[in-house]
Amino acid sequence: MTHTTTTTGLATVPALSDLELRRVDRYWRAANYLSVGQIYLLANPLLREPLRPEHIKPRLLGHWGTTPGLNFVYAHLSRQVRRRGTEMMWIVGPGHGGPAAVATAWLDGTYSEVYPEITRDAEGMRRLFRQFSFPGGVPSHVAPETPGSIHEGGELGYALSHAYGAAFDNPDLVVAAVVGDGEAETGPLAGSWMAHRFADPRRDGAVLPILHLNGYKIAGPTVLARMPEGDLVAMLEGFGHRPYIVSGDDPATMHQHMAHALDRCLDDIAAIRRRARSGGGPDGDRRHIEARWPMIVLRSPKGWTGPGEVDGIPVENTWRAHQVPLSEVRANPAHRRQLEEWLRSYRPEELFDERGAPMAETTAVVPAGDRRISASPHANGGLLLKDLTLPDFRDYAVDVERPGSAATEATRVLGGYLRDVMRRNPRTFRIMGPDETASNRLGAVFEATGRAWDMARLPTDDGVAPDGRVMEALSEHLCQGWLEGYLLTGRHGLFNSYEAFIHIVDSMFNQHAKWLKVSRALPWRRPVASLNYLLSSHVWRQDHNGFSHQDPGFIDHVVNKKPEIIRVYLPPDTNTLLSVADHCLRSRDYVNVVIAGKQPNLDYLTMDEAIAHNTRGLGIWEWASTDAGVEPDVVLACAGDVPTAETLAAAKLLREHLPELRVRVVNVVDLMRLQPAEEHPHGLPHSAFDALFTVDKPVIFAFHGYPWLIHRLTYRRNGHANLHVRGYKEEGTTTTPFDMVMLNDLDRFHLVMDVIDHVPGLDVRAAHLRQRMQNERLRCRAYTREHGDDAPDIREWRWTP
Amino acid sequence: MTHTTTTTGLATVPALSDLELRRVDRYWRAANYLSVGQIYLLANPLLREPLRPEHIKPRLLGHWGTTPGLNFVYAHLSRQVRRRGTEMMWIVGPGHGGPAAVATAWLDGTYSEVYPEITRDAEGMRRLFRQFSFPGGVPSHVAPETPGSIHEGGELGYALSHAYGAAFDNPDLVVAAVVGDGEAETGPLAGSWMAHRFADPRRDGAVLPILHLNGYKIAGPTVLARMPEGDLVAMLEGFGHRPYIVSGDDPATMHQHMAHALDRCLDDIAAIRRRARSGGGPDGDRRHIEARWPMIVLRSPKGWTGPGEVDGIPVENTWRAHQVPLSEVRANPAHRRQLEEWLRSYRPEELFDERGAPMAETTAVVPAGDRRISASPHANGGLLLKDLTLPDFRDYAVDVERPGSAATEATRVLGGYLRDVMRRNPRTFRIMGPDETASNRLGAVFEATGRAWDMARLPTDDGVAPDGRVMEALSEHLCQGWLEGYLLTGRHGLFNSYEAFIHIVDSMFNQHAKWLKVSRALPWRRPVASLNYLLSSHVWRQDHNGFSHQDPGFIDHVVNKKPEIIRVYLPPDTNTLLSVADHCLRSRDYVNVVIAGKQPNLDYLTMDEAIAHNTRGLGIWEWASTDAGVEPDVVLACAGDVPTAETLAAAKLLREHLPELRVRVVNVVDLMRLQPAEEHPHGLPHSAFDALFTVDKPVIFAFHGYPWLIHRLTYRRNGHANLHVRGYKEEGTTTTPFDMVMLNDLDRFHLVMDVIDHVPGLDVRAAHLRQRMQNERLRCRAYTREHGDDAPDIREWRWTP
Repeated sequence: MTHTTTTTGLATVPALSDLELRRVDRYWRAANYLSVGQIYLLANPLLREPLRPEHIKPRLLGHWGTTPGLNFVYAHLSRQVRRRGTEMMWIVGPGHGGPAAVATAWLDGTYSEVYPEITRDAEGMRRLFRQFSFPGGVPSHVAPETPGSIHEGGELGYALSHAYGAAFDNPDLVVAAVVGDGEAETGPLAGSWMAHRFADPRRDGAVLPILHLNGYKIAGPTVLARMPEGDLVAMLEGFGHRPYIVSGDDPATMHQHMAHALDRCLDDIAAIRRRARSGGGPDGDRRHIEARWPMIVLRSPKGWTGPGEVDGIPVENTWRAHQVPLSEVRANPAHRRQLEEWLRSYRPEELFDERGAPMAETTAVVPAGDRRISASPHANGGLLLKDLTLPDFRDYAVDVERPGSAATEATRVLGGYLRDVMRRNPRTFRIMGPDETASNRLGAVFEATGRAWDMARLPTDDGVAPDGRVMEALSEHLCQGWLEGYLLTGRHGLFNSYEAFIHIVDSMFNQHAKWLKVSRALPWRRPVASLNYLLSSHVWRQDHNGFSHQDPGFIDHVVNKKPEIIRVYLPPDTNTLLSVADHCLRSRDYVNVVIAGKQPNLDYLTMDEAIAHNTRGLGIWEWASTDAGVEPDVVLACAGDVPTAETLAAAKLLREHLPELRVRVVNVVDLMRLQPAEEHPHGLPHSAFDALFTVDKPVIFAFHGYPWLIHRLTYRRNGHANLHVRGYKEEGTTTTPFDMVMLNDLDRFHLVMDVIDHVPGLDVRAAHLRQRMQNERLRCRAYTREHGDDAPDIREWRWTP
Repeated sequence: MTHTTTTTGLATVPALSDLELRRVDRYWRAANYLSVGQIYLLANPLLREPLRPEHIKPRLLGHWGTTPGLNFVYAHLSRQVRRRGTEMMWIVGPGHGGPAAVATAWLDGTYSEVYPEITRDAEGMRRLFRQFSFPGGVPSHVAPETPGSIHEGGELGYALSHAYGAAFDNPDLVVAAVVGDGEAETGPLAGSWMAHRFADPRRDGAVLPILHLNGYKIAGPTVLARMPEGDLVAMLEGFGHRPYIVSGDDPATMHQHMAHALDRCLDDIAAIRRRARSGGGPDGDRRHIEARWPMIVLRSPKGWTGPGEVDGIPVENTWRAHQVPLSEVRANPAHRRQLEEWLRSYRPEELFDERGAPMAETTAVVPAGDRRISASPHANGGLLLKDLTLPDFRDYAVDVERPGSAATEATRVLGGYLRDVMRRNPRTFRIMGPDETASNRLGAVFEATGRAWDMARLPTDDGVAPDGRVMEALSEHLCQGWLEGYLLTGRHGLFNSYEAFIHIVDSMFNQHAKWLKVSRALPWRRPVASLNYLLSSHVWRQDHNGFSHQDPGFIDHVVNKKPEIIRVYLPPDTNTLLSVADHCLRSRDYVNVVIAGKQPNLDYLTMDEAIAHNTRGLGIWEWASTDAGVEPDVVLACAGDVPTAETLAAAKLLREHLPELRVRVVNVVDLMRLQPAEEHPHGLPHSAFDALFTVDKPVIFAFHGYPWLIHRLTYRRNGHANLHVRGYKEEGTTTTPFDMVMLNDLDRFHLVMDVIDHVPGLDVRAAHLRQRMQNERLRCRAYTREHGDDAPDIREWRWTP
């Protein structure tokens, strides 16, 4: 090793006494020992006999590279918590280092509290080792199974945004967020460095980023580790941080430097808090703007303390240390010997007592009880979760004298409700969105709070406030990461976004849904508030934008995840939206997707009717139907606000022109009702489905999204062969609302044509009507092409009985 | 306006002579005039009569805010190109500023060349205005319809990565990339600042970032506009740039400053190139490492030169200028008057001649022919596209003596082929991936090239080279953006990635697929090379990783886009993979998704058989079937390497234990063959489908991905009710390969049980076999739980006739 050790602003007096140095090193060695043991050993955990092949796992699966650095960080964080009593949690960005998070939790005792069969003795250690990356055991990454974590370390990019989400509204918390240098190359992480500019040090906890540079990602070098040091420092300072650099490989020196750097960081955080919270003066709320938030750059060798060379080839401090430095250990006696030497280099006999438990000296740096980082209640947010204090959503109802006689902007009304949710829950509810809260017409929330903003403000700004609770970064990644962190630490929230661009966080949604699925099976993890998406500015109303903004496929993406996690709601009008919102904000451990337009849209249901309709999830709208309680000739089904309006207009046309045709209108608000009961908890039994949709009559289904999704949900249904779905078929541009539905054959006229095409035995009047519908389409298209707007009769259409 | 004007390093001598200043300002005014006209006017384009209501569009749709800044940039870029003869294209990150890109292309004459009906006269101007954001016209954003663009400006975050993709291997090109301050908040953009660290100034073109700060995104302020100036400069310098700041609002002064800043930037680029390309000396290839790439920070008011106030409320330089500063212009005479004053403030009578054409003075800054930025052939890459020189993929075939008798790593063999593709196409082919090229066993490509890396190298590095052609940033966004930029400028490439994490670019894929769909309908846009995804490290083989790495849903996402764009291939073995790869690299205007594992997997088909199988896209494997050419009792269908192996093992079990059962094995490599011919160009006619799958026999389909996708593709097929699909049902963890298929009921034993459950009339032996299969599952599970590995008979299973 040729590293030199340098620390920014190194103290002249050592930060650690000899005793402290011994203690922190002992903890580190123990954690490293336990990490190597997890990767390699099936048995003989304390090396009480020489290593034999059968002690070794047959498949060596795990990542050593980042692990010793994580253990190093954890040991030092623990020491600080014990000394200072800091309330602290950590986020392990390099989640491959799962062995570190497990090893330290076991050393602290947390692991055995959560998993009593993994005792704190030799037998428990054997089980701890065996279960790692082993069938029926625990995954190789930091995962829901890991106590003390809210952060799955598989997909990279979200360590900092999760950390900030956890810190919000936890004024005393410090979230130490380890960011690997691989992760630091990702876009979402790169964008997260600006997160502190949205945090308020008077009210929010602090994030302490620890950029852990060990030089390689999988096989290649990393940008942040290799860029000129001057660039790195300038960049981090530009991000608004004061970086403390801890660099080297000699353990004793590195301990001193890390202890010193952490002292400086925690002192800096305390000072910023003091300054921000001391109040007073007209600009009291601006004092923190100039804060330079401390952070650590930790340069340590990849695979530190592991084999320097294997078979004559360098391993430590190279990309070869990424996974298992020694392979074929069962079959290769030399490798096995080297493994044994490696393990013994940590001197386990000094660390664990006869029973195999950590000696008191080994865990002398560990704080007590809930202060143990691995035991932080924030990392099991359900423990801290309190129900929201919700206003009665019925109080916000719009009057509906007759169905479809007047229009409101559903999200604007919802905004009033959310404003009061915000007011009643001033520390436990936030709204996230990429600067679309006002655009999505939820602007009423700004009567209760502002846009979070920890920088300069100008007179021309609208609703910007240092302590704002609406989080608007033009980064869906940041919004999602913040919200996940906020929810997983026991709070509530809502993410509002354009429907098309929510795909930006498809993969983050995947990871959160997977987290919830695994967490639900862990009794010690308590339920958390659901992740609520409100997708307004949806596919049908991109009047300003066009084709790039048109994509309703997030639903398709979402329904691939476990049914017990997923809920999708398409409220057709304002009162149904209010009722759905109330339901979602009360729910736990779900992902709720709510799609509701922001444009003026007809109202159909009184609040009582809306509640009843939502409770059923779908139902016949008798007032729009002409089947009079007997078997219909055709079912017009619809889901989504725009398709519902078109469907009603089609029903009206049929009523006028083919009055003897028995038409049933079915509206679907809870999309999962369409699935069979055996597929989804909300699934409708077949008998109930048949009663609504019939088994043999044509069903013309007008759907908000891609039409095939309806087929995928209903292919096991009896009447499926008679189902004809219209939806978005990827046709669009910047055009008028009605032109959009026409481009995709979802318009009222086409729905009538579909009815005529599929109902058998209609007479010549139907053929005439079909032609007339075709002409109506041509008329509308021509009007639009000429006037640049929808025809007045379309724009002003209302349902009339 | 209270802005001051400052420029870093302002020259003492004005950069522009009076004449030059007049000319560039004239061009700018003309572009602004044409932009406002597009947003507002239906008729009376030259204001030859007073504005009347009927001259105004009924729906005012567009974004003024960023537009004047874009016009300003374009005018100055054009002037430089004309002076210097620079080969230049531009990327309009703030794509909302569509009017700017259209206006400047029309001024340059490019627009009329591409769209002859939009003439360069008053009538053409009227049409230009009318079509904007108008039904049947052009979208409000920069889009495929816009000449000179490779970048849709709807979704934000990719301006820089597209720019670098365009610059690669175009040594003389300068790509000016305008990044809006909203976009700069996105993660992908934030991560793109490191892109130049992967570029080689000896071989690659230069990107000139122009960070256009106008202070607001939609309703809220932006981080980069408001962060302390010191932080901004430090950050940009840390990114490796030399920022030139042009800030202010007075046009004449701003022109001088912009001209000066651009002079500096283009001189800097020339100097870096000279230094890098002068060669000589042992470290000749490292001279550019210290290069500080120039960039511009342009601070100009949002809605610059637009209405300062409307109805007494400030608009210019506030968020209110984002869309249309003046609303209700038809109905509101005061607004209409203000619009007319605004338009006249550009003095159109000085800009356009009697016929309505731009006067010579107006376009004096415009370069000639292909040098016009809007006419860059790079922005219509199909014009420049040349076929790859491909080696004969048959030369890489693996020998297959008997089907299923031996295993190879399909991607390792593919690596050899790709190495030679790389060698034969040293300037037109690149491989992108988040450091997974070696991990995905394509390592042979490193015999032909290195990992691109423009920073320091260490002896422990593996295959890192300044002129490497494998682009490995741990950012799927960067990889995708680079590749899109590279393809759209007429080159070829491949993106290899983990299957689960390709969801990170779901939304980017959406935008690219939309781009291709629209481009195909524009005759002047020539076809470009397809975007090829190779998804290795797939859902079934995440032995090291676990649940977070398991998601096969990218296929589901992809098939929502237009069928004519989408191809999905699941080659079951090595030779089929080679043949698929060759096919994909020759194709145009598609997105090809190829899923192929990197682990040892059985080979079934000789190369001739593989070619025949791929040509059909799916087919009966007679050697594995026992239906002997007559109607089978059951069809075992499969798609994907792991499901194919399990299916064959199931077929073998059935052959041994129920020898009289007629089993047909059908393998699907081209997934789109399953769709009806009317749904997808590759769709199989119903008769052919029925001949393969029967109309009434049970089909047990073992699928690589989520099972319902097969139902969604086949629900119109005659035999659909008999189709039973097994696939990934979101169960997984870190475990053995066979345990993974068992967790999801995709294993051979379960497939046999499915056959027994669905074939009617089987006898008691079948019931016994079913029980035995159940026991085999238990045996395997128990073995795995005890030994941490799959049972040897599973691991070593081979097909034997």
